[in-house]
Amino acid sequence: MATIPDNVQEYNLHVDYVIRYSFGDVDRSQAIEQLEKLLQSLAQVGLQVEVRQGDESSLLVFVKASEKRLKQAVYRSRVRDWLYGIRNAEPTPSNSTEPQTEAERLRVINQMITLPKEEGGAAITPNHGEWKNVTAIFPLHDVDTNKKWIRDWSSKTFLSDDDLDQIRNKFGESVGFYFAFLQSYFRFLIFPAVFGFSCWFLLGGYSIIYTIVNCLWCIIFVEYWKRQEVDLSCRWQTKNVSAVRTKRREFKAEKEVCDEGTGEMRGVFPATKRMQRQLLQIPFALVAAIALGAIIATCFAIEIFISELYNGPLKTYLIFIPTILVSALVPTMSAILTSIATKLNDYENHETNDAYDAALTQKVFVINFITSYMPIFLTAFVYVPFASRIVPYLDVFRLTVRPFVSKEHATSKQSHFQIDPARLRNQVVYFTVTAQIVGFAMETIVPYIKQHALRKYKKYNKERNGKLDRNGDKESPERPVVSFDDPAEEVQFLTRVRNELELSEYDVTDDLREMCIQFGYLALFSPTWPLVPLSFFVNNWVELRSDFFKICMEFRRPVPLRTDTIGPWLDSLGFLSWVGSITSASLVYMFSGNAQHGPNGEPTDIKGWALLLTIFFSEHLYLIVRYAVRAGMARIEPPNSRKERTERYLMRKRYLESTTNAEADEEKDKDDITSVAQLTDISRTSLEDDARRASLHGADPATRFWMHQRGWTESAKIGAGIIQAQPTNGSVKKQQ
Amino acid sequence: MATIPDNVQEYNLHVDYVIRYSFGDVDRSQAIEQLEKLLQSLAQVGLQVEVRQGDESSLLVFVKASEKRLKQAVYRSRVRDWLYGIRNAEPTPSNSTEPQTEAERLRVINQMITLPKEEGGAAITPNHGEWKNVTAIFPLHDVDTNKKWIRDWSSKTFLSDDDLDQIRNKFGESVGFYFAFLQSYFRFLIFPAVFGFSCWFLLGGYSIIYTIVNCLWCIIFVEYWKRQEVDLSCRWQTKNVSAVRTKRREFKAEKEVCDEGTGEMRGVFPATKRMQRQLLQIPFALVAAIALGAIIATCFAIEIFISELYNGPLKTYLIFIPTILVSALVPTMSAILTSIATKLNDYENHETNDAYDAALTQKVFVINFITSYMPIFLTAFVYVPFASRIVPYLDVFRLTVRPFVSKEHATSKQSHFQIDPARLRNQVVYFTVTAQIVGFAMETIVPYIKQHALRKYKKYNKERNGKLDRNGDKESPERPVVSFDDPAEEVQFLTRVRNELELSEYDVTDDLREMCIQFGYLALFSPTWPLVPLSFFVNNWVELRSDFFKICMEFRRPVPLRTDTIGPWLDSLGFLSWVGSITSASLVYMFSGNAQHGPNGEPTDIKGWALLLTIFFSEHLYLIVRYAVRAGMARIEPPNSRKERTERYLMRKRYLESTTNAEADEEKDKDDITSVAQLTDISRTSLEDDARRASLHGADPATRFWMHQRGWTESAKIGAGIIQAQPTNGSVKKQQ
Repeated sequence: MATIPDNVQEYNLHVDYVIRYSFGDVDRSQAIEQLEKLLQSLAQVGLQVEVRQGDESSLLVFVKASEKRLKQAVYRSRVRDWLYGIRNAEPTPSNSTEPQTEAERLRVINQMITLPKEEGGAAITPNHGEWKNVTAIFPLHDVDTNKKWIRDWSSKTFLSDDDLDQIRNKFGESVGFYFAFLQSYFRFLIFPAVFGFSCWFLLGGYSIIYTIVNCLWCIIFVEYWKRQEVDLSCRWQTKNVSAVRTKRREFKAEKEVCDEGTGEMRGVFPATKRMQRQLLQIPFALVAAIALGAIIATCFAIEIFISELYNGPLKTYLIFIPTILVSALVPTMSAILTSIATKLNDYENHETNDAYDAALTQKVFVINFITSYMPIFLTAFVYVPFASRIVPYLDVFRLTVRPFVSKEHATSKQSHFQIDPARLRNQVVYFTVTAQIVGFAMETIVPYIKQHALRKYKKYNKERNGKLDRNGDKESPERPVVSFDDPAEEVQFLTRVRNELELSEYDVTDDLREMCIQFGYLALFSPTWPLVPLSFFVNNWVELRSDFFKICMEFRRPVPLRTDTIGPWLDSLGFLSWVGSITSASLVYMFSGNAQHGPNGEPTDIKGWALLLTIFFSEHLYLIVRYAVRAGMARIEPPNSRKERTERYLMRKRYLESTTNAEADEEKDKDDITSVAQLTDISRTSLEDDARRASLHGADPATRFWMHQRGWTESAKIGAGIIQAQPTNGSVKKQQ
Repeated sequence: MATIPDNVQEYNLHVDYVIRYSFGDVDRSQAIEQLEKLLQSLAQVGLQVEVRQGDESSLLVFVKASEKRLKQAVYRSRVRDWLYGIRNAEPTPSNSTEPQTEAERLRVINQMITLPKEEGGAAITPNHGEWKNVTAIFPLHDVDTNKKWIRDWSSKTFLSDDDLDQIRNKFGESVGFYFAFLQSYFRFLIFPAVFGFSCWFLLGGYSIIYTIVNCLWCIIFVEYWKRQEVDLSCRWQTKNVSAVRTKRREFKAEKEVCDEGTGEMRGVFPATKRMQRQLLQIPFALVAAIALGAIIATCFAIEIFISELYNGPLKTYLIFIPTILVSALVPTMSAILTSIATKLNDYENHETNDAYDAALTQKVFVINFITSYMPIFLTAFVYVPFASRIVPYLDVFRLTVRPFVSKEHATSKQSHFQIDPARLRNQVVYFTVTAQIVGFAMETIVPYIKQHALRKYKKYNKERNGKLDRNGDKESPERPVVSFDDPAEEVQFLTRVRNELELSEYDVTDDLREMCIQFGYLALFSPTWPLVPLSFFVNNWVELRSDFFKICMEFRRPVPLRTDTIGPWLDSLGFLSWVGSITSASLVYMFSGNAQHGPNGEPTDIKGWALLLTIFFSEHLYLIVRYAVRAGMARIEPPNSRKERTERYLMRKRYLESTTNAEADEEKDKDDITSVAQLTDISRTSLEDDARRASLHGADPATRFWMHQRGWTESAKIGAGIIQAQPTNGSVKKQQ
């Protein structure tokens, strides 16, 4: 273990993976048989096992790789990488193939457990098929290191490249890429935070300068990150890793076809059929937009009615109704739509995990886009310009209110109605400050408290049950009492393992989605309130730490996954920044200069053609600038990419030199053409004689053509003759 | 020569390349010295040479590759391809490395002549440095085959894949790609030709249905061609060929830098500096637009004045003035701008030929875009909507006319002025029919006639000079008389070579540009006159043949170049189809329904907001559809691409299997873990004893942890024990 720090894997009693084997809902003898099979399969690929008790219905199988077999697996994995162009240098099968990092070690062991038999794995497929009793496979957290990092990070502003490398070494490239993205985004936010603050202070909201700078910043950030991805994938040796696509286990082939090329049977599913199924996305997007839109618009209308038209009793309390409705209905509807999206995605029957994830991300993004941005869209582009025309229709609510209050109380006179010009800004502030804080609390603090409370409760319950049991009291049999028969010295360790087992699995896409949606507020609406980037800057300092804390404390340690990109979210970022060029331009056109507001607070002189012209120019300017930035960025090669190219170049050069040398050796035998040429010095006439002689011998025209001059020296001589035979320019003039 | 048809290279007396060595403007002894050097360099890389007289100031050096050295060069070239990922299979250095096609043969021989010495070439750089006397290097046409093909093709509508393969085998992939593109485009035109004819017949111009279908067709065609490029590059084994970039000879490094990675000195030019220089493109584009725009707009204004306002004498003749002006001034200005563009491009100092060509193409495209489409843009978007406001300003021309004619004659009354609604259509017809025919004549027929006439004149002149010479008359000394001292049997061949030498070099980008501009008319303006695609369909049938005729008859045979794309023109096609979505939508909105025309023939009810809204929707619909079509196309794998992937897969599989087998052999030695496990059958208690024993011996916790169970069978036993110790669900219920 030369390349990994010495303490690696020491901390968890050398345990690489823990497998939970649940036997709760199966027949005992069958469970025992399956367990034997599991242990045998693991042992066959070279994994050492130890069994301990999990809880009342599960076993813990501890797995440790034998060094020799691990080396072989690492070598095999690297050869595969090399063949797919992920590694440049061909790996050598020497005995010293050590995993470079902890993540590689865990990844390879995971491959040993899960890969199909023909690829050298044990073919364990958790929760699936014959292995449905295997309900979890996960590595154990490195508690001490995690704690140390959490401590260290809280005292510095930016993570260094080294910190990111360490995250990647512990948790794999997939998590590494998320933190690298978050770090880049956080670092990039400095500029708009400072600039936004200055603009807010000096120019207020809806400043054209801020909007232009913000759009430009969005373009540069997205393009910079694309370049950064290339750089990172070179540094972490995962370039082209997406070329190695893992087949989805759930993929249902329509028919088995014998592949002409490989001669293997292969399940195929016609692409056209999948495309037909994907067309369902269109009605899905419409349904999602209508369902969520209806909820949001209704609540919005109720809110306006209550806050601005209603004057009856209980107004102070009623004002909370729409908020409560939104908070209750939108997440419910989102959950329903997400489950529909998942079903749709399953129905699309993607062949690879990447394709599946990309398609699902796309659908989830649609839902998120609607829930996150629609309220602000409604305020900016429906409420403000059309309020005076729409508000009268809110009379319908009066009908609902009438039974409870007297008519004259019910609503303020319509003529009193005033558009609240601060509503848009307040809404943006809510989404970019309040909602972020609430989100942080819901995502990190609440689960942590819940988890601790639950553990305390369980412990208390167990103790009570134990007491009751000892008292012979049979009144609390909800949970059978298990006395864990752990060896004394392992109690602490096993308790920790059982605690980690109870945690849920970490999915990096959730965190990426959160950041992507946050970026959207910045790109789409920040001209309204230029402090948005400042708020996000502060928020993301916390986010960076709390997300790491979350991974360490509230989730099982993720199985390291390799990746060379943040995946489809990158497209979402690009899309949001594009839409941003449209929305910010129209926001600025519509709202800049408050003086233009009419008697009801609405902007009076919004002209359709001017708004559209603004959008048209802004969007196309955006596209041109993006094109230029892209072209510019493409010129500047990221440092690690250059390093990688140099390596490839050197490898090629070595190879070519070796072949050229081999040739040179071969060429030691005399070269007929030059040697003949240098041998004799024949006069022109004798050569011509040769040609004539050959022609007499009846050779074909081509042979005769090439026999005029033997060797280059003769050609040179004849050429010289011709040159000298020509009248030079000078002589021509003289002739004249 | 097993793989190439037997007749290959037979036809030109086995001559592979002809090198023209000009000695007209250098000192004779120096010329002779240089010639020797040239011949020696060629002989050293294994090329046989023959010298013949060219004309009065040049020699012809005939070059033929020795089979052995050619094979070596082919092998070296393939190894390089393999290292750069162009070939999948590693080439073997067996003696049987024959060039696969004539194009490969010529390409490799060209490499032998031109590559730098360290890469195994003779380092001949025509027209450059010490080789500035080498004024041409070119292969000879295969006259018989060319004639046969021209004959064959005239009798069929579509070229087969086989025909395209043969073009590629003769002229290389670069020309092959052009013909493949032209063929695809021609084939794709069938649908809009038929559909356009039907629409024209049933619906007339500006039909919404035609416009939508046309836009959709443009998207599909561009995306189809992208896919086709991938397919072709797989079939012709040129995939990733653009990765092997040839350095530009003219590249001027700002400083020499020692590359850290490779340890070589390397000329660098800072990317930022180049980008600054590239910013000059913006003023250049503006200048081009203003210069050409001013010419076109002025001539346009004159034309309108004369045709629609002027009523004075000579109207019939004056009407031609603007046409003559445009024909004279626009090409002149284009030529000036193109030369500025070339200078700008040189100044940008690109490092590779590809980058240089791409940048130049971009600039040339700007010029072409303006010259080709601006007249129609002016008519559609300036003349028609604003004519009644602009025409009065044309009074300035009346001032010019006044001196010559009486006042009342000069112009028609302004109230009589009528916008000519057919002008736009007539202009489109002119550009898509007349201009195409004129272009064809100028490009193919005129040069052919000129060339023949010139040859006749030369021959006549020579004969006359000969006679005069014989008569001792010295009065016609413009050309010194050369009596070619050719061997009788070679006279015919050498005459042909001299004729080919006089031809100019073929550049495929000119033809690609022509097609690209043609596509632009279709994408941008065809709703005006739905017969456009039909006209292009007919035109391209001729174009396909005439371009081949042109290459065979009016140009030297091109040196085969490899490519995997039609290059930057692909982007231009995409751009034109995008702009088309804007222009066609606005054309349809503005002109559909003639009833809306006002009293002066102008469309009365063009509303700014409605026009902009139409554009906005049309453009975004276009982008969405393009996204969908792209996603769809990406799913369907082109056949040759699949074949290539299969080959790669098989190669990988073979390799992996061989490593796995090697491992399996190694694994014959017993596997300690499983063998120990299967050896003994120890009871649980004895195991626990073991553990205790170990703990007594003071082993560390990890060792003790892993010593509880020896081998998987023991673990299974203990696991079974735990499972059986648990109360099952049933037993719990019983307890209750």
